[in-house]
Amino acid sequence: MKNFTFLLFAAVVLLGCRGTQTETYREPARPDGQADMLGYAADPIPVLRVGFIGVGMRGIGAVQRFTYIDGVEIKAICDMEQYNLDRAQKVLADRGREPATEYIGDSESWKELCRRDDLDLIYICTDWVTHTPMAVYSMEQGKHVAVEVPAATTIEECWQLVNTSERTRRHCMMLENCCYDFFELATLNMAQQGVFGEVVHVEGAYIHDLRELNFNDRLSANSSYQPGQGEVQKLPGLSGYYDYWRKRYNEEHSGNAYPTHGLGPVCQILDIHRGDRMEYLVSVSTDQFGMTEYARERFGADSPEYRQEYRMGDMNTTLIRTAKGKTIMIQHDVTSPRPYSRLHVVSGTKGFAQKYPATQIAIEPNAHYPLGRDEMDAMLAEYEFPFVTDIKELARSVGGHGGMDFIMDYRLVYCLQNGLPLDQDVYDAAEWSCLVPLTEESVLGGGKPVPVPDFTRGGWQKIQGYRHAYAN
Amino acid sequence: MKNFTFLLFAAVVLLGCRGTQTETYREPARPDGQADMLGYAADPIPVLRVGFIGVGMRGIGAVQRFTYIDGVEIKAICDMEQYNLDRAQKVLADRGREPATEYIGDSESWKELCRRDDLDLIYICTDWVTHTPMAVYSMEQGKHVAVEVPAATTIEECWQLVNTSERTRRHCMMLENCCYDFFELATLNMAQQGVFGEVVHVEGAYIHDLRELNFNDRLSANSSYQPGQGEVQKLPGLSGYYDYWRKRYNEEHSGNAYPTHGLGPVCQILDIHRGDRMEYLVSVSTDQFGMTEYARERFGADSPEYRQEYRMGDMNTTLIRTAKGKTIMIQHDVTSPRPYSRLHVVSGTKGFAQKYPATQIAIEPNAHYPLGRDEMDAMLAEYEFPFVTDIKELARSVGGHGGMDFIMDYRLVYCLQNGLPLDQDVYDAAEWSCLVPLTEESVLGGGKPVPVPDFTRGGWQKIQGYRHAYAN
Repeated sequence: MKNFTFLLFAAVVLLGCRGTQTETYREPARPDGQADMLGYAADPIPVLRVGFIGVGMRGIGAVQRFTYIDGVEIKAICDMEQYNLDRAQKVLADRGREPATEYIGDSESWKELCRRDDLDLIYICTDWVTHTPMAVYSMEQGKHVAVEVPAATTIEECWQLVNTSERTRRHCMMLENCCYDFFELATLNMAQQGVFGEVVHVEGAYIHDLRELNFNDRLSANSSYQPGQGEVQKLPGLSGYYDYWRKRYNEEHSGNAYPTHGLGPVCQILDIHRGDRMEYLVSVSTDQFGMTEYARERFGADSPEYRQEYRMGDMNTTLIRTAKGKTIMIQHDVTSPRPYSRLHVVSGTKGFAQKYPATQIAIEPNAHYPLGRDEMDAMLAEYEFPFVTDIKELARSVGGHGGMDFIMDYRLVYCLQNGLPLDQDVYDAAEWSCLVPLTEESVLGGGKPVPVPDFTRGGWQKIQGYRHAYAN
Repeated sequence: MKNFTFLLFAAVVLLGCRGTQTETYREPARPDGQADMLGYAADPIPVLRVGFIGVGMRGIGAVQRFTYIDGVEIKAICDMEQYNLDRAQKVLADRGREPATEYIGDSESWKELCRRDDLDLIYICTDWVTHTPMAVYSMEQGKHVAVEVPAATTIEECWQLVNTSERTRRHCMMLENCCYDFFELATLNMAQQGVFGEVVHVEGAYIHDLRELNFNDRLSANSSYQPGQGEVQKLPGLSGYYDYWRKRYNEEHSGNAYPTHGLGPVCQILDIHRGDRMEYLVSVSTDQFGMTEYARERFGADSPEYRQEYRMGDMNTTLIRTAKGKTIMIQHDVTSPRPYSRLHVVSGTKGFAQKYPATQIAIEPNAHYPLGRDEMDAMLAEYEFPFVTDIKELARSVGGHGGMDFIMDYRLVYCLQNGLPLDQDVYDAAEWSCLVPLTEESVLGGGKPVPVPDFTRGGWQKIQGYRHAYAN
């Protein structure tokens, strides 16, 4: 009998091990008194009062953009460096805005800002690992929150965001600006109108040589970096990431640390948690070569930069399969010398679109060949969303990655002012950010399949089809 | 004591299951009396006597190309259709060649051809599933063999090829023509010269809308297919694959059935089994949408074509990791409407190259931007292999995918005539073909990691660096 039990147990264990494909993530039960945030809209806020945490690299640009939006009051700014606060105040003065109250002093100063009773929205542009604590605290103080990408770096943090948003009934929108680029928006509209037929496979990427920035080596004499090409504005006195935070993350982690730029736009196209959901992913990284090679050439073979171990491989590729049998391919490489690419591919049963390294659209019955330039431009114009048509000229003049950052801020403010659901809800933030820890888990497990949590806890078919909200 | 044993066993099983990344494929021991074929060269064959099995779609082109190569006698041809044999004889007559002996009659006629005692090389251009049986039989009859892609469709067949080649000391070269395209060859030379630094990540693909061909629907009135764009020449009376063999494979199999076009060139760049080896892969497919949608539109919702189940998903993406920490991304899609792409990406610590959808090369210290057209063309010319320079004009005039097919045949004959190792050995054939069954295994296992066999059985570091062989 003992032997029989033994064999039965072994058989069950073996079968369980082989059944990776049927493994499902066990979502923690929704705490009592919480309801989902699917389609949630808060009361209209005609005059939106905003506080900014972090006004260095990304934050100063956001402050500037907000000065171009009507019905917005920039009440408070927080940073670790007085230099950054001074620059932000100058931006406000130059645009004829009132000075903002400054918060500085120690690493807890941002909490004072959050506790003010005259703010509706906290806008967070800090390093990755402080995003969730700041977002959670902001919601707990009754504020809506907009937070830079990725919103979270662990599964525990993803659930903190979801639970806090559900409990406090405050919006938590991740600032995925790439959802607002012109080509991505047009292909989203085309997908929604059925131009691609059934969308079957999509791809996205963040491929951007950031080695100089990682080493705060941006303004070195032998720099090959050309300002204006990437996400970072050229700022006097700033040569990389505050206190090397991005390099440190590369030292300590593997996987895809920055997946959301490629993932956000294609998840909207696939109606993720609006009819479909990501079921599992597999992720494989190269070893790391790029940082070490750069450090050897730039700092020498005796330098600490060269001797440092960097766990994050140069190229990470991740494959995701959805409940409806679609696939998503996502790449990340910020340490190889190659042209910038924010790959965006949409492949369906009736047509195809791609951006990077070339922009092309191909539609049945002639999908063997991409449309000519004029035809493609006409199609992109035809499928421009109305809100893009309304503000694209202003967006392009204000700037921020060619205008998409402004469109993002404009939509955020518009939806809050009109009491509408935001374009990106807290489940998007959790779903897109959860690739950070899950890709690391898969990579460390030799590419093993890892289930993707259903952060809606069963609600992913409640809304059918992703749509932007409009007043009236 | 029983309990202790029980727990120990359970622990071992559990640990084993979690350690997917350390799992290794157990290669069958090399049978007594066999030695490896690494670097193997046969005696020179100044006048090469060739027999062709299958002279339909791919084979007729090969016969024609061989008429342009000196020191070659085309002795025998075999096919299931007299029509194809007649066409091949006409090609020979038009080129002033002697008629070849014909083999036709039943599905065993090819064996008669193989048993002739006046042949040095059997050239096989049949459907996928007959490749290995024909190649094995040919070698057993003492003939060298060249076989179309993929050379095998199961792991068992891969080992049959390896063991037969090792035992009979006959070459078995898979006809991976994409290794001979001009851009791929130039990037191989650049990699060998260190232009890319350490090559870290590579990509390849076969993306080609073959729906019309799969349904033998090629010449339909509403055809969108444009001859000359793909691998298949427009032939009168032929509208697809003989007896629907490719459609049938799509019905019965999943994974990537046709991986070698993208994989071959990048494996040569990564020195696979010449210093590195593929350790494991993960593979994820979409569900199938394209064949069914095409069948509904073309044949109607009542048609058997529409009701048929097709197991092969539209898009398959596979990630492979090597022993030296490099990654390979390979895609396959032959059932979606999109422009042809045989993606070829090489990314290293010093530079980058890509073909499809745009051709670009970028080199440090300015790798943020691709080279201008003139600079790129100059670089491609600089890194042209000598054998390409020698024969490219003839190759382009003879044709076959723009010349690469002719360069392949030329190299095959050149190496055999001069008694040199071939450009592709039997281990390449097995390694590249084994993705057919291994991707299917991974896909059916929910993307589970699958170890890649070491077909050299420990010899993968014996040769350091892939190189073409030259006489003198």
